[in-house]
Amino acid sequence: MPHIKLFIPGPIEVSEKTLAAMAKPMIGHRSGDFKKLYAAIQPQLQALFYTKQPVFLSTSSSWGVMEGAINNVVGKKVLNCMNGAFSDKWLDVSRRCGKQADGLQAEWGKPVDPKALDAKLATGEYDAVTIIHNETSTGVMSNIEELAAVLRKYPNVISIVDTVSSFSVVPIKMDELGIDVLLTGSQKALALPPGLSLFACSERAFERAAQIQGRGYYFDFLEFKKNAEGSMTPSTPCISQIYALQSKVEEIFAEGLEARYARQAKTNQLVADWVVARGFEFFAEEGYRSKSLTCISNNKGLDMEAVNALLKKRYSAMINCGYGKIKGTTFRISNMGDETEATISELLTWLDDCIKG
Amino acid sequence: MPHIKLFIPGPIEVSEKTLAAMAKPMIGHRSGDFKKLYAAIQPQLQALFYTKQPVFLSTSSSWGVMEGAINNVVGKKVLNCMNGAFSDKWLDVSRRCGKQADGLQAEWGKPVDPKALDAKLATGEYDAVTIIHNETSTGVMSNIEELAAVLRKYPNVISIVDTVSSFSVVPIKMDELGIDVLLTGSQKALALPPGLSLFACSERAFERAAQIQGRGYYFDFLEFKKNAEGSMTPSTPCISQIYALQSKVEEIFAEGLEARYARQAKTNQLVADWVVARGFEFFAEEGYRSKSLTCISNNKGLDMEAVNALLKKRYSAMINCGYGKIKGTTFRISNMGDETEATISELLTWLDDCIKG
Repeated sequence: MPHIKLFIPGPIEVSEKTLAAMAKPMIGHRSGDFKKLYAAIQPQLQALFYTKQPVFLSTSSSWGVMEGAINNVVGKKVLNCMNGAFSDKWLDVSRRCGKQADGLQAEWGKPVDPKALDAKLATGEYDAVTIIHNETSTGVMSNIEELAAVLRKYPNVISIVDTVSSFSVVPIKMDELGIDVLLTGSQKALALPPGLSLFACSERAFERAAQIQGRGYYFDFLEFKKNAEGSMTPSTPCISQIYALQSKVEEIFAEGLEARYARQAKTNQLVADWVVARGFEFFAEEGYRSKSLTCISNNKGLDMEAVNALLKKRYSAMINCGYGKIKGTTFRISNMGDETEATISELLTWLDDCIKG
Repeated sequence: MPHIKLFIPGPIEVSEKTLAAMAKPMIGHRSGDFKKLYAAIQPQLQALFYTKQPVFLSTSSSWGVMEGAINNVVGKKVLNCMNGAFSDKWLDVSRRCGKQADGLQAEWGKPVDPKALDAKLATGEYDAVTIIHNETSTGVMSNIEELAAVLRKYPNVISIVDTVSSFSVVPIKMDELGIDVLLTGSQKALALPPGLSLFACSERAFERAAQIQGRGYYFDFLEFKKNAEGSMTPSTPCISQIYALQSKVEEIFAEGLEARYARQAKTNQLVADWVVARGFEFFAEEGYRSKSLTCISNNKGLDMEAVNALLKKRYSAMINCGYGKIKGTTFRISNMGDETEATISELLTWLDDCIKG
C-alpha cells in the first residue's frame, strides 16, 4: 500500500524530517536532558504565541485543554461562541463539566459576531467566553482583532481562544490582544503528529484559576505553571511529540515567520482561485475565509466521495468530504503545514483530473 | 552525545523497532485505515487485559485516566489505598476533583493490606476504591488476587486498579478478578513512548458512570465506549503511539505471554541475586517485591548520584536514585520491557564497576 498524502484539515501530512525527529530514543522526563529540551524551545514558542508568558505542553489532544480551560476559569457562567461543529460542541463540553453555559450561535459559514458578543457580555452574566478562531468544519476565520477589542471591555471575563487550525498561519498576538487562554494542537497547523497540545495563560487566567475549586490535576493550569518553572510538565509528557515540535520550531524560524505566513496565504489563494475558476462556491462568508483550509460548497452536486476515491487510487492523495451536518454538501482542502505552491498546484490538477472521472 | 540507555522505571528504553514503527506517516483518525488499525489490535489488547470488554486508548499519560476514573465512578466517597508516592498522590487528585476521599495509608515499602481494606469497606462509606498494583516508587507489588477477593465482597464499590509498571509483567486477570477499571500506560511495562494510556471498564463501571454528573468529555468513559463501537476514539488520538503499540503487541504475542512473564521474572531475579550478593537490602517487604523493578535500600550509604554519573559516562546507561521522600536513600533498577538476561547481567557488571569508583 502506498502512503496516502493527506490534504484533509487534520491530522495533516507530517514530513519525513519531522517523523525522523520524533523517533529519537527516550530520555527521563525529570532528567536534565528533558529540562534542557523544554527550556530550549520556550523562546521560540513564546514568539509563536506572541507572549511573555510560559507556553505549556499538554500530553493530550486539544479537547483536553479546551475542557481543562472550562474547569480552570469558569466560576459563574461561560459563553460559548458557536459557528461550526467544533465551537458548537464546546457548549456541550462546558455543560458536561457541570458548568453554567450559554451558546452564542452564529449560522455555520459565518464568523463570530463582535456586536452580538458585546451585547451578551454586557449582561454581566458571564465570567468566561470561548471562541474558536478558525472553525475547521466550515473554513471560517473570525476576526480575532475585533473580537479581542470587545473582550478587552470586560476585564472580568476570561477569554479562551482555540487556534488549532490557524496557529502559525496568521499572527495571533496573545499579549497585545489581551487573550487570556490561547491554545493550539499539534496535528493541524503545526504539521506534527497528534497527541500534544500547547497553551499559554495570562496572569488574569492564573488568578481566576486560583479561585476555582475542582480544577482537577491533569489539566490544572496552576500545576502547569509550577512545573514550568523547573522546565517540566505535571505528568509524564509525550516526549516523542516534543522532539518533533523542537524540529518543527527550528524549521519555522529558519523559514521566518513572515515568510511562513506569506507562503500559506499564497497556497490558500491558489485554492481560492481554483474554486472560482471551476465555478464552485465558498462555504465561508466573504471576508472570513480561513487561510489554512478551504471549505467548498458542492454546488455542482458532484459525488465527491467518488472523486476522493479516485484521487486516492490515482495519486495517493486525499481531501475531505465535509464534516458534521455539512458532510457531503461541502468538501475541504487543507493548505496547512509544509505545503507549497508546487504541491498545492499539483493537487489541484489531480482534482481536476479526478472530477472529470 | 551517545544515547543513554534507560534502566530507570519509566519512561523506559524503547527499541529501535518500536521507534521505527512509530515514525510512519499519518492517517485520518476518522478514516477506514484508522478503524482497521484500531480493530486489528483489540483482540490482542483484550488478551493482555484478560477481559471481554473493549480496551480503550486514551491520548494522555496515565494520570489522565487515573483522574478520569475518579470523575467517572465516584458518587459518594472514594477510598485511596496508599503505599508510595503515586498511590499517595491519588488521594490528593481525588480531592482536587471535588470528591469526598479518604486514604488508607500503608507504610512505604509495604503492600496494600487486604484486611485493612476489608475493614474500611465494611463501613459502607465508600462507593469506589483506588489501588496501584505495583508501586513504582517503592518497588512493591501488592497481592491483587487477595485484594480482589475482598473487593468482590462489595459489589457496590467500583475498583480502579493502576498497573502502569506491572501490566504484561505478571498476568492480571481483569474479568476473573472482577476488577472494574483496569488501566495502564505506554511508557513503563509496555516499553512504548509516553503519551498513550490504555484502560478497560466492567459493565458495573459503565452503569456507575451513567449515574455520575460532571464526568466531563475528554475522559468520559461512556464517550470512549460509544466511539469504540465504531473503532474510534472520542478525540484525535496519538496515532504514532498507536502504531508503536501495534508493533509491540505483535512482538508480545510472537514471544508468547508465558515466555514474556518468565523472561521478566528471570531478569528480576538476576537483580535480586545481585542485591543479596552485594549486601544491599530490598526496600520492599519480603513477598511483595515487584517483578518489574527493584527498589534497593542504599544501606551502604553510597553516593549513588556519583555512581549513576559514572554509569552514564562509562557505559551510556542510567538507573534511578530514588523518588519522593526516599530519593537518595534508595535506588531503583528497572527490568521492564525488552531487557534480557544478557542486558541485565551486563548492567549489573557495569554497576559493580561504577560502585568501585
